[in-house]
Amino acid sequence: MEGKWEEIDQYARQWIAEAGQRIRASFAEPLTVETKENRNDLVTNVDRGIEQFFAEHIRRQFPGHRLLGEEGFGDELAALDGVVWVIDPIDGTMNFVHQRRHFAVSVGIFEDGVGQLGYVYDVVFDELYTAQKGKGLFLNGEPLGRLQPAPVAESIIAINGTWLMENKRLDHRPLVRLAKDARGTRSYGSAALELAYVAAGRLDAYISPRLSPWDFAGGMILIEEAGGIMTNLDGKPIDLLNRSSVLAAKPGVHEEILYRYLRG
Amino acid sequence: MEGKWEEIDQYARQWIAEAGQRIRASFAEPLTVETKENRNDLVTNVDRGIEQFFAEHIRRQFPGHRLLGEEGFGDELAALDGVVWVIDPIDGTMNFVHQRRHFAVSVGIFEDGVGQLGYVYDVVFDELYTAQKGKGLFLNGEPLGRLQPAPVAESIIAINGTWLMENKRLDHRPLVRLAKDARGTRSYGSAALELAYVAAGRLDAYISPRLSPWDFAGGMILIEEAGGIMTNLDGKPIDLLNRSSVLAAKPGVHEEILYRYLRG
Repeated sequence: MEGKWEEIDQYARQWIAEAGQRIRASFAEPLTVETKENRNDLVTNVDRGIEQFFAEHIRRQFPGHRLLGEEGFGDELAALDGVVWVIDPIDGTMNFVHQRRHFAVSVGIFEDGVGQLGYVYDVVFDELYTAQKGKGLFLNGEPLGRLQPAPVAESIIAINGTWLMENKRLDHRPLVRLAKDARGTRSYGSAALELAYVAAGRLDAYISPRLSPWDFAGGMILIEEAGGIMTNLDGKPIDLLNRSSVLAAKPGVHEEILYRYLRG
Repeated sequence: MEGKWEEIDQYARQWIAEAGQRIRASFAEPLTVETKENRNDLVTNVDRGIEQFFAEHIRRQFPGHRLLGEEGFGDELAALDGVVWVIDPIDGTMNFVHQRRHFAVSVGIFEDGVGQLGYVYDVVFDELYTAQKGKGLFLNGEPLGRLQPAPVAESIIAINGTWLMENKRLDHRPLVRLAKDARGTRSYGSAALELAYVAAGRLDAYISPRLSPWDFAGGMILIEEAGGIMTNLDGKPIDLLNRSSVLAAKPGVHEEILYRYLRG
């Protein structure tokens, strides 16, 4: 069945490239920005247009596939059987609105819950991270090496400052200890990009207390194919149908964060 | 005396471009990484080589100018009279080492303490931010608009998570209140780039409790030419000869942060 995934991969790349072109073209047009669940949860006409574009193409080309998406053009999924595309048309919408950079198109394609194809596309810098199950991680077609273990003391951890302050989602104190021990912390404002950076070895870990499946689905496949480890903050497997906390890291760093800080 | 600054500007651009080429070429060579004041304060053979390159060219071409630099090839300055180049050969050395991106060459040229020419060069993405006193801000030769006032509630604030935790340098509590009220926080790990982003309107404010002159000299001139405001965290003018805290922001945001949070 190799040919099946090669075919899906070809279409996915073609649509992601076209989505990128449409997003770049949108920079010349007026942007409509609305808020969703809260005043800082932004969505634009471009997010919606790109998800609709994917939904139409997937349904026409692969009528048996299903789509889990952020903006409402997908399917209601109660289970992960069959082929499921999990798509965030623009991950990092706040960056898209404020910066016109540091956002990504994220696509993860699963069969019966197993990640088969992952894509994170940094549109503005034209960097496409791709992974196919068992074949490793690529950046713009060039293979990237497998992740090597590292200690927290030499690690750069991606974590938003919000989670180092007292907050409603988690106990910030273990994370403060972690941030003090690490070499440094960063926050780029796009989970998909930050996961791609971990997969590429530019960051050593990424931590978030609450993401939606479309935020992490593409990046999760990249991380696995790079030899990294991604679980929730309890060290358990990620549930692709629901919101989840995320701890994605190099080997070594993942265990150290989990056992020395989160369970410390 | 317009011609004098035009001539200096031409040489500065030429040397910055050549520094960028040398840094990109260095990616193919082994990197020597050492630590300075503490285990996370990194310096490489490339930082040193690039500062030496600037020092030699400045001394040969402009023997009357002086240089304030990070890596020891500059002059001992007790005052800011005459023309002074303030240079960070690689701002964001930790990113340079770990990521091979998100670092910048930063150059500020002052006469009698007044900023005349500012440059921040994002080497990997080939983005050169430039400003000449009274002539506005440019990105790769294209003029960028003047910064417009904004409220904190719609602002993205660049601040490292370290300063939102209890720490030795400042009282983190006002900054925690600020981070909670802002639209979001980010941290990229290069003061020069973050100041350039504020100047370009991609970030609304940048805050750091302790920077050296070479970290902020180039960016300060960009901020001023973009219509932004940069002071220390007490709202006082920045001292170019010493370490300083930095609050750089759009108009409106600067006042709100200063009066509602830092003095609140």
